[in-house]
Amino acid sequence: MDRLKVSLLGSTGMVGQKMVRMLSSHPFLELVKISASPSKVGKTYEESVRWVEGGEIPESVREMKMVSTNPEDHKDVDVILSALPNELAEEIELNLVRSGKIVVSNASPYRMDPEIPLINPEVNWEHLELVKKQQEKRSWRGLLIKNPNCTASILSMPMKPLLSLVSSKKMIITTLQAVSGAGYNGLSFMAAVNNIIPYIKGEEDKIPKELRKMLGSLKGEVIEQAKVDARVTSVRVPVKVGHMGIINVITEEVDIDEIKRKLQDFRSFPQERNLPTAPKRPIIVTKDESKPQPEFDLKGNEMATFVGRISYENDVLRLVVLGDNLVRGAAGITILTVEVMRELGYV
Amino acid sequence: MDRLKVSLLGSTGMVGQKMVRMLSSHPFLELVKISASPSKVGKTYEESVRWVEGGEIPESVREMKMVSTNPEDHKDVDVILSALPNELAEEIELNLVRSGKIVVSNASPYRMDPEIPLINPEVNWEHLELVKKQQEKRSWRGLLIKNPNCTASILSMPMKPLLSLVSSKKMIITTLQAVSGAGYNGLSFMAAVNNIIPYIKGEEDKIPKELRKMLGSLKGEVIEQAKVDARVTSVRVPVKVGHMGIINVITEEVDIDEIKRKLQDFRSFPQERNLPTAPKRPIIVTKDESKPQPEFDLKGNEMATFVGRISYENDVLRLVVLGDNLVRGAAGITILTVEVMRELGYV
Amino acid sequence: MDRLKVSLLGSTGMVGQKMVRMLSSHPFLELVKISASPSKVGKTYEESVRWVEGGEIPESVREMKMVSTNPEDHKDVDVILSALPNELAEEIELNLVRSGKIVVSNASPYRMDPEIPLINPEVNWEHLELVKKQQEKRSWRGLLIKNPNCTASILSMPMKPLLSLVSSKKMIITTLQAVSGAGYNGLSFMAAVNNIIPYIKGEEDKIPKELRKMLGSLKGEVIEQAKVDARVTSVRVPVKVGHMGIINVITEEVDIDEIKRKLQDFRSFPQERNLPTAPKRPIIVTKDESKPQPEFDLKGNEMATFVGRISYENDVLRLVVLGDNLVRGAAGITILTVEVMRELGYV
Amino acid sequence: MDRLKVSLLGSTGMVGQKMVRMLSSHPFLELVKISASPSKVGKTYEESVRWVEGGEIPESVREMKMVSTNPEDHKDVDVILSALPNELAEEIELNLVRSGKIVVSNASPYRMDPEIPLINPEVNWEHLELVKKQQEKRSWRGLLIKNPNCTASILSMPMKPLLSLVSSKKMIITTLQAVSGAGYNGLSFMAAVNNIIPYIKGEEDKIPKELRKMLGSLKGEVIEQAKVDARVTSVRVPVKVGHMGIINVITEEVDIDEIKRKLQDFRSFPQERNLPTAPKRPIIVTKDESKPQPEFDLKGNEMATFVGRISYENDVLRLVVLGDNLVRGAAGITILTVEVMRELGYV
Repeated sequence: MDRLKVSLLGSTGMVGQKMVRMLSSHPFLELVKISASPSKVGKTYEESVRWVEGGEIPESVREMKMVSTNPEDHKDVDVILSALPNELAEEIELNLVRSGKIVVSNASPYRMDPEIPLINPEVNWEHLELVKKQQEKRSWRGLLIKNPNCTASILSMPMKPLLSLVSSKKMIITTLQAVSGAGYNGLSFMAAVNNIIPYIKGEEDKIPKELRKMLGSLKGEVIEQAKVDARVTSVRVPVKVGHMGIINVITEEVDIDEIKRKLQDFRSFPQERNLPTAPKRPIIVTKDESKPQPEFDLKGNEMATFVGRISYENDVLRLVVLGDNLVRGAAGITILTVEVMRELGYV
Repeated sequence: MDRLKVSLLGSTGMVGQKMVRMLSSHPFLELVKISASPSKVGKTYEESVRWVEGGEIPESVREMKMVSTNPEDHKDVDVILSALPNELAEEIELNLVRSGKIVVSNASPYRMDPEIPLINPEVNWEHLELVKKQQEKRSWRGLLIKNPNCTASILSMPMKPLLSLVSSKKMIITTLQAVSGAGYNGLSFMAAVNNIIPYIKGEEDKIPKELRKMLGSLKGEVIEQAKVDARVTSVRVPVKVGHMGIINVITEEVDIDEIKRKLQDFRSFPQERNLPTAPKRPIIVTKDESKPQPEFDLKGNEMATFVGRISYENDVLRLVVLGDNLVRGAAGITILTVEVMRELGYV
Repeated sequence: MDRLKVSLLGSTGMVGQKMVRMLSSHPFLELVKISASPSKVGKTYEESVRWVEGGEIPESVREMKMVSTNPEDHKDVDVILSALPNELAEEIELNLVRSGKIVVSNASPYRMDPEIPLINPEVNWEHLELVKKQQEKRSWRGLLIKNPNCTASILSMPMKPLLSLVSSKKMIITTLQAVSGAGYNGLSFMAAVNNIIPYIKGEEDKIPKELRKMLGSLKGEVIEQAKVDARVTSVRVPVKVGHMGIINVITEEVDIDEIKRKLQDFRSFPQERNLPTAPKRPIIVTKDESKPQPEFDLKGNEMATFVGRISYENDVLRLVVLGDNLVRGAAGITILTVEVMRELGYV
Repeated sequence: MDRLKVSLLGSTGMVGQKMVRMLSSHPFLELVKISASPSKVGKTYEESVRWVEGGEIPESVREMKMVSTNPEDHKDVDVILSALPNELAEEIELNLVRSGKIVVSNASPYRMDPEIPLINPEVNWEHLELVKKQQEKRSWRGLLIKNPNCTASILSMPMKPLLSLVSSKKMIITTLQAVSGAGYNGLSFMAAVNNIIPYIKGEEDKIPKELRKMLGSLKGEVIEQAKVDARVTSVRVPVKVGHMGIINVITEEVDIDEIKRKLQDFRSFPQERNLPTAPKRPIIVTKDESKPQPEFDLKGNEMATFVGRISYENDVLRLVVLGDNLVRGAAGITILTVEVMRELGYV
C-alpha cells in the first residue's frame, strides 16, 4: 500500500512530541512537514523543541526544518495532523481546510458542529460519513475531522458496548485527571503536588456533550445524539499521565458477568482491519481488584482502555475506567483516525 | 473547672502523636499515662516513638515512661483515649471497660454495636445517651464510646444539615483519600507516588453503614438509622493528609443559596458550649470555585470541614467536602468527644 | 517600647505572604501599607492575592487597600520591607531610598555593593555599621540594607562558628534546593516531579560570593572578605520547602565533639536581646543520624537551622545543613534584621 | 551461536522483574527456571509475583512454575542469575556454587573477596580472569561472579576513562539515590515524599571500597586496588528510578574539552563485540546544561550513563553522573556480564 505524506501542526507540545515519536516508526504514515509557532520557522526540530518525551528525538525528525502553518508550506502533503492549542486552532485549521487540505485535529473548536465528525475510531468510525454533508454545506475545498476531548475519548470506549446493556443512561461520573492534561506548563509544582484540585475549567460541560455526539447514531446525514444523561465532576490529581473515570450508571439489575464479557470482547473496525495503531483489545478488563492504576497499567499499551471495579449494587452499576490521556486521549487517536480514513478511502 | 486525667493507648502511631500534640496544650485534659506495644513498657516516650508530627516532642511527654495497657496501669485516670490499631483494639479496650474504665476509641471494632454510641460530636452528640442502655445490657463496669471511620466522620458533617433540605437520600459518592489514612507505613512510596489506587479494603462498605448510624435519631434507647442510601467508591490518591468526598445527591430541585447558607451557619453543641477543640465554624463554604484543596485549606483549621463546588443540575445536587483525616477524622474528634462528655457529666 | 510602622513591597508573592503572616502577630512591627504590582493598586489584599500560605488571610490585612511603590504612598512609615522580584527591585528600591526611606530587602541587586550591609542577623549583625559609610558616600537620603540569597543564608549559619575550628576554608558543597526557591510558578509539575535538575541558574556563583561577604569582618569601614573557598553544585529537588547543604571542608583533623558543642551552643546578638523572631537556638544539632529532613524538622521552628551527619574522615569534615528557605532564607531574616536595627537605634 | 539456559533466583523482586523482562526478548539467553521464596514453589510466576514492571508479564514466563533454590532444581542450566536479597544470598549462592553451578549475582556478600570478580563489564571485564584463582583456592566446583552496588556501578563508568586524565584521585562525592534503590517496599510514601533523607545505611562505606576494586588493575592473580580516595555522602531523594552522583575531583588544571571527548568516545569490550545488552555509547555527555535528569534521560537507554555539568574551577573538576539503578545498576549489568562470559568462553 502507498505511503501517505503527513504534516504535523503544533509539533513541539507534549501531544505533538508523542505524534512525532509514533510517526517515526509508522509503517505507512511519513512525517514530512512539521510546524509550530511562527518564531520557530526555519529552525531545526531539535533547536525548536524542549523534548520531554523521554529518550532521544527520532533521527528522522531531528534535523527537519520547521515550516509555517500556511497552505503553501504544506503543498504535497496528503493529510495534516493538528495538535495546536485550542486558542490558535480555529483560524489556522480553517485556513488550511479552505485551501483544500484534509485536517485531522485534536483541538476543541468545531467539535460540536453537526457537519464535522468527532471521531474516536472504535466508537464511531461510521461518523466519518458526515464529511459528505460537510462538503455539501460548506464551501471548504478540504475536510475537517475532529478528535474528542481526552477524557471523553477514554470514557466513551467502555460506554459504547455498555449502553445497550443498561436500562437507563443516567450516569454520575467523577473524573480524576492527570496534570499533563493541562499541558506541560499548565500547573506549577507548588500548586499541584500533594494536592487535589476539584475543578477543571470547562471540562464538566464538555464531556457529556461530546459523549452524546460520539455515542450517537448516524441517521441519514444527521447524528442522532445518544441519550446519555451524565453529571460529571472533574478533579485534578497529582499524577503525570492517565485519566481515570469512575462511572456510576443508575440502572435496573444487570448481569455483571455478561458486562465483563462484552467489554472484554469488544472489537471494532480498527481491530478488524488490523490497523497498525489499533490496540489488540480496545478494552482490558482488569482482574486485580485494586486495578486499574495509571502508574502500572498504561506502559506499553497506551492505546487500550482499562476497566475495573465492575459491580452492581443498590440500583447502581459502577465501573472504573483508565486511559492514557496523551495517547488514547490525543496523539494516538488522531493517528488511528487517519489510518481508518485511508482504509475507507477518505484520504 | 477541674482537670481530667487522661491515658492514651496507641500513643506512638500517627493519630496517637496528633493526640499527644493536642493534649500537650489542652486547658483541662491532662495526659498522665501513655502506652503502646508491650516491648516499649518502661522506656521514655522519646525512646519509643519515631516522631513524625513535625517540630519537637512536647516537653511534658518527652520523658514520660510508657506503661502497659493493663487496667492496673491506669488506676487514677478519668478517661482513656484509644488510638490502637483495629486488630488489637477489641481485646485491650474490652478488658479496660470491664474493669471499670471509660474508653473513647477510634478503632473500628464495636462501632456498629447498637448499644455503643458512635460519636462525631457536632453531628450526634445526643447519641451519648446510649450509654445508659449500654450499662443496663452489658455487664461492663466502665463505658465504651466509639468515634467513626475518618471518611465517614468528614462526610457526615455537611450531611447533617443537608439531609433535611433534600427530597431523597440517594447518594453517589466518590472519596479521594490521603495516604496517611492507611497508616504511616501503610503504602510504599513506589506503590503510591504518581498513582491512583481505586480500591481501599472495607471502606466502601463501612462508610454508608456508619453514616446511617451517626445520622440516625435516638428513639427512646434505640437509634433509628437514617435512610441514607449511599453508593461509595473509595480511591487512594498521592496526598499525605486530607480526605475529600464528592457527594452527588439525586434529588428534586433545591435552593442552592439556602443550602450554602444552612451549611455555613451550621452550629451544634460543641460550638454553643465553646468547647476548646470545637472549630468556630464546623463547615466552611469555600468561595473560590477551585476549592477546597487539601494542601491549602486545612492548615490551621484542622477541625473544620470545607465544602465547595455546590451546584444543582439535572436532578443532581453535587458538593465537594474536605477534612483533615488525622484531626477531624481521628485525633481531634476523640478529644472533642471527651470534652462533650465532661460538659454533660458523663466523665 | 514603641511600635514601628512597616510597609511591605511585593506582598502577594510567596515570601510576601510569609511576611504578612509573621507581621500579623508581631509584638512591635505594625504592617500599615502593602503594595504589589501597579495593576492591583486600590484593590483589597484579599482581592489581590492568591493566598497559598495555608489557613486564612490574617484579619488585619484582608481588607487593607494596596498602594503603589511610590514614596508618597509610604509617608508615615518607619521602615519598608521588600520582597520584590529581583528584576523590579533595583529601580523601585533606589527610588524609595533616595527619597529618604529605610528599605530592608530580600532582592538580589546591590547585595555585593561594598557600602551596603548584607545581613544574616546572627552571623554578621555588626555589618550594619556599614550604613555610616553608605550615608557618606552615597547621596541617598534613606538607607538600603540587604538580606542574602536563601541558600547562602542557611549555609552561613553553621559556618560562622565553624570557621574558627578548621584549618582550611576549602569547601565542596552540594545544595539540594526546594522548588519554592524558584517562586510559586517557577517550575511546572511536569518538569519537577519525580525529577532532579542538577542546575540552578546563577546560584553556584552567587553563594560563595555572598558567604565571603557575610562571613567577613568589618575593618574600619571596609568588610574584609572571609577566605572561604567554596565550590558549589546546586541541584533542584522535588520538595516544596527546605534547602539542604552538604558541606565538605578539607581540613586537618578536627574534634567532632567540640564542633557539635560549639554549633549547638552558638548564640548571637538576636538571642542575647531575646528578639521576637530570633530562634532560641540558631543551630540545632540533630541526634538521629538520618536527620535533618525537610518534611519533619522545619515545622514550628522555621527560623532555626538544623545540622546533622557531622563526621571527620580522610581529611574531610562533612556536615549536612537544613533550613526553611522561605522563612530563615527570606521572610524571617528580613523581619529579624529590622528587629536588630531597632534594638541598635538604626530605625 | 548456541543458546544458553538460564535460571533466575529472586525473580519476583523489582530487579528480578527487570531481568524477566529483559530475558524475555534476549537473542541467546533463555530463561528456563525461576525461583523466589520457598512458599511460592509450585505456583506459576503470575500467581507468585506482584508485577510492577509496567505493561504485562511476558507470555513466556507467565505460566512458568516456580522452583526451589536447591541445586537439583537447576540441573540442566548453564548459568544462574541471582537477584536475591542480600541477607539470603550468601547461603543459597554458596550452596549452588559448591554443587558446581556458575552464579552471577547482584547481592552484596563476597563482593570484596579477593578471589571473586566484581564486574561492571565496560569497566573491568578483564577481572573475570580472577576465576582461575578462585578455582585454585576454593574447593567450589562452580564459579561465583559478583556485580557491584548500583551506585558504585554508575559512578565507576565515567571514572574509568577519567582517572588517567586527572592528577589526583581525591574525590568528594554526593549521591542522590532513587527510592527504588531501597526495594519496592523499602520506604513508605509518608516517609519519603516531599522529603530528603541524608543517610543511607552502609552506602557511604561500600561505594569507595567497590570503586577501588573495580577500577583496580589485575597484576597476575591479584587486583591492585585503584588509589581512589573518595568521601561519599549518600542522600535519598523522592524519585522512583535513577541514581545521580555529583563528583568533585580535586586535581590540577584539566582540559575540559579533552575530558568531554574522552568520556563521549569511551568504548570497551561489550561495545567492540556488539553484545546485545551493551549500550552503543556507555557514556553520553549531555549538551543541555540542566541535564542529566532522571525523569527525561533514562527512558529507552537504561544501560547508558549520562554525564553533564562538567567544569573545572578553583582546583576542582566537577561532573554530574546519572544512571538507571535497576538496569545499569543491577539487572542489565548481570545480563551483560553473562554475555561477556559467554564471549570469553567462561560459560
